[in-house]
Amino acid sequence: MQLYTYFRSSAAYRVRIALNLKGLEYESLPRHLTRDGGEHRHADYLAMNPQGLIPLFVDGEVQIAQSLAIIEYLEETHPEPPLLPRAAAARARVRSLALVIACEIHPLNNLRVLNYLRTPLGHDSTAVSEWYRHWVACGLGALEAEAARAPGDQRHLVGSAVTLADICLVPQMYNARRFACDLTPYPRLSEINAHLEELPAFARAAPEAQPDAV
Amino acid sequence: MQLYTYFRSSAAYRVRIALNLKGLEYESLPRHLTRDGGEHRHADYLAMNPQGLIPLFVDGEVQIAQSLAIIEYLEETHPEPPLLPRAAAARARVRSLALVIACEIHPLNNLRVLNYLRTPLGHDSTAVSEWYRHWVACGLGALEAEAARAPGDQRHLVGSAVTLADICLVPQMYNARRFACDLTPYPRLSEINAHLEELPAFARAAPEAQPDAV
Repeated sequence: MQLYTYFRSSAAYRVRIALNLKGLEYESLPRHLTRDGGEHRHADYLAMNPQGLIPLFVDGEVQIAQSLAIIEYLEETHPEPPLLPRAAAARARVRSLALVIACEIHPLNNLRVLNYLRTPLGHDSTAVSEWYRHWVACGLGALEAEAARAPGDQRHLVGSAVTLADICLVPQMYNARRFACDLTPYPRLSEINAHLEELPAFARAAPEAQPDAV
Repeated sequence: MQLYTYFRSSAAYRVRIALNLKGLEYESLPRHLTRDGGEHRHADYLAMNPQGLIPLFVDGEVQIAQSLAIIEYLEETHPEPPLLPRAAAARARVRSLALVIACEIHPLNNLRVLNYLRTPLGHDSTAVSEWYRHWVACGLGALEAEAARAPGDQRHLVGSAVTLADICLVPQMYNARRFACDLTPYPRLSEINAHLEELPAFARAAPEAQPDAV
């Protein structure tokens, strides 16, 4: 197994956590997102992944782009330990919370979106940071409200085991800290995150633990 | 089963298609996204769905937000006809293509994002339309390249049956037309879309066929 990755990509960070939780060995193939116009935009990479995004996961003949598709594939091909509960309603809740991060926060704060705000839209770094923090606050606010409404065990978003929702939470909280977002309105998320990021599978997936970390 | 919906919401449109394909009856509960400050932001709705987004799906005691989580739940609880292939690699490909739309296009062109570009960022409707078309072009360009690399049968994005990827494609193409995006660079997607939107399950889910259509 191989993973085209970038240490700061939070989508790659999710997949690294899932691979570690499943106990799967993989080769890390870093692609720098800003050097040389972005190594994920080079022709050799686009030939493998026309989406031109990090991560790309390779399992023999199988190539998969999109972090959530990769993690669902890992879940189907290596079911233990499970990253989704057994019951359909609980699985739906896990996916719903994961998608708050994957669809409502992360796409708006991607590097290419922040770049577009600078050029052509002409915004300075203050406006770009406000944009970033605005969408983090919307998404984490929704997630905190979800956690308040149907809490897990205070160590996990849903139930009492690590799920796909937790795998999405930790990289998002990492990014929020990096952009100096105020996390005090999210005590439940902060408590869960503090527990999770200490787990070996999460710690080994962190950006600073990657071979390409700067 | 009940679906909180809005005729123009493309996430709700996806769920309507899936419900129709599965042959499931449901009650349509429209919430207007702009009237009275957005009926999805009212206290009674937020009490049910803290995410404050449309759609929300209700199946007895089960309430699910996020269109892809709803559709995966329908797939698990009502497996026929399947909306995902059987093999893990093919399932991953379907999810990956669906996520190009759900994570790379749709979140950037949501109503609340377009509103933020107007206020506080101060952009006029020309700049907002350019933003919209820019992200449609990025995402549909990636999807057309994916379709060229591993084509389905010219009537479906993957294989020869309707999948979750097709369910995401049709509402996105509908939106792209509504915002006058140039679709000539996407002949494969256009051909697939032309076939799909004629199918009864898709046609009955279209915005203009909804009880709340204006």
